[in-house]
Amino acid sequence: MSVVVNLGDGRKKKPSLEALGGLVATDMKRVNEIILARMHSKVPLIPELAGHIIAAGGKRLRPMLTIATARLCGHQGDRHLGLAASVEFIHTATLLHDDVVDESTLRRGHDTANAVWGNQPSVLVGDFLFTRAFQLMVEDGSLEVLAVLSNASALIAEGEVAQLITSNDTSTTEQAYLDVIRGKTAQLFAAAARVGAIVAERPKAEADALESYGMNLGIAFQLVDDALDYAARQAELGKTVGDDFREGKITLPVILAFMRGAEDERRFWRRALEDGDQKETDLAEAIRLIEKHGTIADTLARARHYGAIARDALGLFPDHPIKRALAEAIDFAIERGY
Amino acid sequence: MSVVVNLGDGRKKKPSLEALGGLVATDMKRVNEIILARMHSKVPLIPELAGHIIAAGGKRLRPMLTIATARLCGHQGDRHLGLAASVEFIHTATLLHDDVVDESTLRRGHDTANAVWGNQPSVLVGDFLFTRAFQLMVEDGSLEVLAVLSNASALIAEGEVAQLITSNDTSTTEQAYLDVIRGKTAQLFAAAARVGAIVAERPKAEADALESYGMNLGIAFQLVDDALDYAARQAELGKTVGDDFREGKITLPVILAFMRGAEDERRFWRRALEDGDQKETDLAEAIRLIEKHGTIADTLARARHYGAIARDALGLFPDHPIKRALAEAIDFAIERGY
Repeated sequence: MSVVVNLGDGRKKKPSLEALGGLVATDMKRVNEIILARMHSKVPLIPELAGHIIAAGGKRLRPMLTIATARLCGHQGDRHLGLAASVEFIHTATLLHDDVVDESTLRRGHDTANAVWGNQPSVLVGDFLFTRAFQLMVEDGSLEVLAVLSNASALIAEGEVAQLITSNDTSTTEQAYLDVIRGKTAQLFAAAARVGAIVAERPKAEADALESYGMNLGIAFQLVDDALDYAARQAELGKTVGDDFREGKITLPVILAFMRGAEDERRFWRRALEDGDQKETDLAEAIRLIEKHGTIADTLARARHYGAIARDALGLFPDHPIKRALAEAIDFAIERGY
Repeated sequence: MSVVVNLGDGRKKKPSLEALGGLVATDMKRVNEIILARMHSKVPLIPELAGHIIAAGGKRLRPMLTIATARLCGHQGDRHLGLAASVEFIHTATLLHDDVVDESTLRRGHDTANAVWGNQPSVLVGDFLFTRAFQLMVEDGSLEVLAVLSNASALIAEGEVAQLITSNDTSTTEQAYLDVIRGKTAQLFAAAARVGAIVAERPKAEADALESYGMNLGIAFQLVDDALDYAARQAELGKTVGDDFREGKITLPVILAFMRGAEDERRFWRRALEDGDQKETDLAEAIRLIEKHGTIADTLARARHYGAIARDALGLFPDHPIKRALAEAIDFAIERGY
C-alpha cells in the first residue's frame, strides 16, 4: 500500500517529509518569522525559553499540515500563516507542560526546558505561548477556527489528565489507550488539517475529510512513536529507547504483551510499571517479552490500519503534488526509524 | 474619602462586599451552575480537582465584576453569565498553576490541589480549565471579548514569568513591582469589568472607564493583600502571615523597608529573601523593620491612591445601586483585615 519509488536498481526510496517540506518551504519560512516575532516579550526569559524548545525544532509537522491543507484547498491569502504559527504555539505549550508532568530531562536529544530552567518558568511560559496562540486566532477573526482549536485544546488537556491516571495501569485496554493518544496527539493533527480547509472556505465535507486525515495520521504517528520507544535505533531518532518503560507508561506494545503473556509475565509488568520497582535488567526483559509476543509488529500493523484510513480520506481531493506529499507523510510516519 | 455609614452611635459600618453580592446573587447562582456544568469531564479527576479549588471559593470577585458591570450598563440578556464563568475559569487555572510554581500547600486555609493530588494534575487541569474558558468565549461569539480576555491572559502569564525573575531581587523598584501586580492581578480585574460594557454594547468610553475601575481596584486589592501578609490577623484572613516572606517574594512593604533601611538592614533582607537563608526569628525581625519604617501604612496609602482612581472611573455612570456597591468594593479591598 505504501507509495514507494522504485529506483530501478531494486532499492526503494525511503518515504520522507522532503516532498511535503519542499512544497510548503516558502510558507513555512514566513510561519517561522511569525513564530519568532510573536514569542517575543519584554520579559527576556520568555523568548529565551520558548526559543530553546522551538529551535530544538522537531519536524514542525502540525503547522505544515495547516499550510499544506490550505494550499491543497486552493487558499490564496495569508491567513493560514498566522494560524499555522498558532497551531505550533499550542503544540509547544503542551510540550513544555508535558515535560514538567513527565519530569523529562531530554527531548529530541536536547535538554528539556524544565531541565535547564526548572519547572516554574516551563509552566508559565507554556501558559504564555498558549495565550499567544489564542491571540493569533483572535487576530485572524474566524470563530470557526477558534472553535476548532479551542475544542482540540480542551480535548488535549483532558487526554493528558486521562493519561496521568491510566499511565501506570497495566490493565489499560487498547480502546482506552487509543482514546488517550487521540487526545494527546491526534486531536491537534486533526485540527491543524481542518483549519486549512476552513481558511480556504471549502465545503464541510472537505474539512471533515482533512480532519479525518489528520486524526488518523496522528494516531499512526503516535503508535509508531510508542513502538520506537522499544525498538528504535537510538542515534537515528534522537530519542532514548526505554523512556516510556522507565516512566511506567502503558503503550500498545506493552498492552498487547501484557494481554498475551502468562501470569508470571504479567507480574513482571505490574512490578516494573505499576509499582515502578525496576532493576537494571528490566528494560532488556521488557524488550524480550515484546519481541516474544510480536507486539511491535502488531503495533505497526495497527498504525498501517490508521494510515490507510488517512490515505482514503485524501480520496476526495484531485491529484495534486501536495496530495501526493500528504500521502507520503503517512508512509513516513509508519516507516521512519526502521 | 471612604463611603462609610455612620450608625449614629459613633461606630462606622465596615465596608463589605455584601451589597455587591446581594445585587448579583441571582446571576451568580446561574454563573455557578455554568461553572459546575462546564468543569465536568468524562475524566473524573478533572471535576474532582477543579471542584476542590472552585469550592474553596474565595470571593468570586472577578465574575462578580463582569456581572455587576454588565448590569450597571443595562445589559438585559444572558451573555454575561457564560463570560463570567469564563473569567472565573481563567482565574482558577492561574491559581492552580501559581500554587505549583510557588510550591504552596495552603490557599485560603485549605490544602492546595497540588498538595492533595500533586503537581502533575494541577498543571493539566489548569490547562483544561483555561481551554474551557476559551470554549465559553467562542460560544458567546464576540471577537472583542475574545481579544480582551486573550490579551489579559497573555499579560497575566507574562507577569507571572516576570515575577519569577524579580521575586527574590531586593533591588526591585516600586515601578517594577507595580508592573508585576498589574499583570498578576489587575489585568484580569480590568478585563472582567470591561467585558460587562462590551456585552451591553456600550460606547468605548464606558468600556475604558470600567476597565480602569477594574485595573485600579485590582492594584489596590493586591497591595493590601501584600500588606496583610505581614500584618493580618491570621484567623480572619484564612491566610498564613509570612507566606510571602518565607517564599522570598519581594512586595511593596519590603521594597520600601529595603530602600529606607541602613546597610545592615539591607544585608538582612538580602540574606533572608535573596539567599533564602532564614532563621526562625527572621519573620519577627522583618515585621519589626517594616513597622520601624512604617511601610504597611504607606503601602495602604498607595492602595488608597489606586482606590481613588478606581472610584473616579465610576464617575461616568449615573447613580445606581450597583455603582454604589462597586464603590464600596473599593473600600472593602482597602479596609479588609484591619
